[in-house]
Amino acid sequence: MKKNVYVIGIGPGSRDEMTFRAACVLKECDVIAGYQTYIDLIRDDYPDKEYIITGMTKETDRCRMALERAQQGASVALISSGDAGVYGMAGLIYQLGAAYPDVDITVIPGITAACSGAARLGAPLMNDFCLISLSDLMTPWETIEKRLDCAAAADFVICLYNPGSHKRADYLQKACAIILRHQNGSVPAGLVRHIGRKGEDAAIMTLGELQHVPVDMFTTVFIGNSQTELIDGHMVTPRGYTLL
Amino acid sequence: MKKNVYVIGIGPGSRDEMTFRAACVLKECDVIAGYQTYIDLIRDDYPDKEYIITGMTKETDRCRMALERAQQGASVALISSGDAGVYGMAGLIYQLGAAYPDVDITVIPGITAACSGAARLGAPLMNDFCLISLSDLMTPWETIEKRLDCAAAADFVICLYNPGSHKRADYLQKACAIILRHQNGSVPAGLVRHIGRKGEDAAIMTLGELQHVPVDMFTTVFIGNSQTELIDGHMVTPRGYTLL
Repeated sequence: MKKNVYVIGIGPGSRDEMTFRAACVLKECDVIAGYQTYIDLIRDDYPDKEYIITGMTKETDRCRMALERAQQGASVALISSGDAGVYGMAGLIYQLGAAYPDVDITVIPGITAACSGAARLGAPLMNDFCLISLSDLMTPWETIEKRLDCAAAADFVICLYNPGSHKRADYLQKACAIILRHQNGSVPAGLVRHIGRKGEDAAIMTLGELQHVPVDMFTTVFIGNSQTELIDGHMVTPRGYTLL
Repeated sequence: MKKNVYVIGIGPGSRDEMTFRAACVLKECDVIAGYQTYIDLIRDDYPDKEYIITGMTKETDRCRMALERAQQGASVALISSGDAGVYGMAGLIYQLGAAYPDVDITVIPGITAACSGAARLGAPLMNDFCLISLSDLMTPWETIEKRLDCAAAADFVICLYNPGSHKRADYLQKACAIILRHQNGSVPAGLVRHIGRKGEDAAIMTLGELQHVPVDMFTTVFIGNSQTELIDGHMVTPRGYTLL
C-alpha cells in the first residue's frame, strides 16, 4: 500500500476559497493533521476523520506525527492556511520526510494571503513584488532588515506576513522606517485582517499612516511602490497598459 | 439591477486547482471574457455562455468590452490564468472601470504560478521571496535589472514570470548573470512548464546550468537562495525549524 502525506493549503479559511483538489483530498484521507486554529476552520465539514492537533511552535512534532501515521499505512492530510508552500509546512515535511523514505509527499497549493488579501484591497500586486515575514523567530532580524531595504530600494510592492505580535509590537513601525528611506510616505498601503474569516476587516491608508497602526499575526500588510495609486478607494498598481 | 464584473483567477488550468468560488461565479455569470488560450481551458465546462474572446496584446479592448457588457446589464466574468491579481487583469479593470461608475468590480483570487509551480518542485518558497516578470513590454529593462540585483543581494528566493519568448531569447541568461553577482552557481534552480496543463514538465538544476536552458512564456522559473537545498530530488528552502 502506498503511504502518503498530502501537504494542503486550505486557502484563507472559508471552503469557498479552497480548491477542488484540496477538498477532494480532505474528503478521501484517513487522518487530518494541523494547528488547532486551522483544524477549527474545517472540522465541521469532515467530522469522521482521525485528527492530529498540536499547538503553535509544535510544528516539528506535528509533521513527524503525520509522517508516522502515514508510515503505519494511513493517508494523511497535513493542512496549513493559505498556501502550504509559503511560510507553511511543505518545507519542514520534506526535511523530516527524508527519514521516512517509503512515504510519498505531495504538496497541494492554496490561495496564499498575498493573493487573497490583495483581492480584498483592489489590485496592489499587479507588478513585481516581494513577500517578507517580519517574524524573527527563525530568520535573524538583520536579514529581514536587509530584505526590506533592498525591496524598497528596487521599488518592489511589498507584502508583509506576520507583521506583529505581543512580543513584536513595534516591528511594523521598524519595517516602515526602513522602507521610508526609499519610498515616499504618501504611497498607498493597506492591511487585511482575518482574510476570508469571521471578522474580516480591510483598510487602506498611506505608508506614513501605516507606521502607527497596531497589527497582529492575523494581519497581512501591503505597501505599494512608486506606481501604486488609489482608484475609487481601491489600491491599484498599474502595470503600464496604454489606456487609449 | 446590479452591474458586475468578476475578475477571476482560474489557477493553473485544470478545474481541480480552481477554487469553489471561481467555479461558482463562472457557472452563474452570463458572459465569460478572456484571452483565447484561457477560454480554451474552460469552455467545455460552460458551453452555454456568451463569450468575449480577444488575442494577446488586446487586453485593454477585452477589459473595456467586459465593462461595456456589464454596463448593459450582464454579469460578466473576466478570466486570467493563475491569479488575476498577479500580472493579470485585475489592475487594468480597475483603471478602466473608473469610467463605468455603476459597474461593481470583484476580484476572485486563484492559485498563481509561483504557488502551483513551487508545489511541483518541492517547497522552494518557504521563506521570503520575490516575483519578477522578465517581460520588458511594460516595465523598462533597467528597472527589471535593478530588481534582480537587489533581490539576489538580499538573498531572496526569486520566482521569474515570463522568462522568455522568441523576441527575448536571451533574457533568462541575462537575469542569471545578474543574480550570479551575488549567488553561487551551485544554488538549486527549477523550472516548470505548462503547470497543471497537458505537457506539464518540471526540471531541477543549478543556477549555473539554468543560464543555458531555453524557456518560453509558459515556463515559470525558481531560483533558490543561499539556504535552498535538494532533498530527495526536491527543491526545498528550509525555514529554520530545529529538527530535534
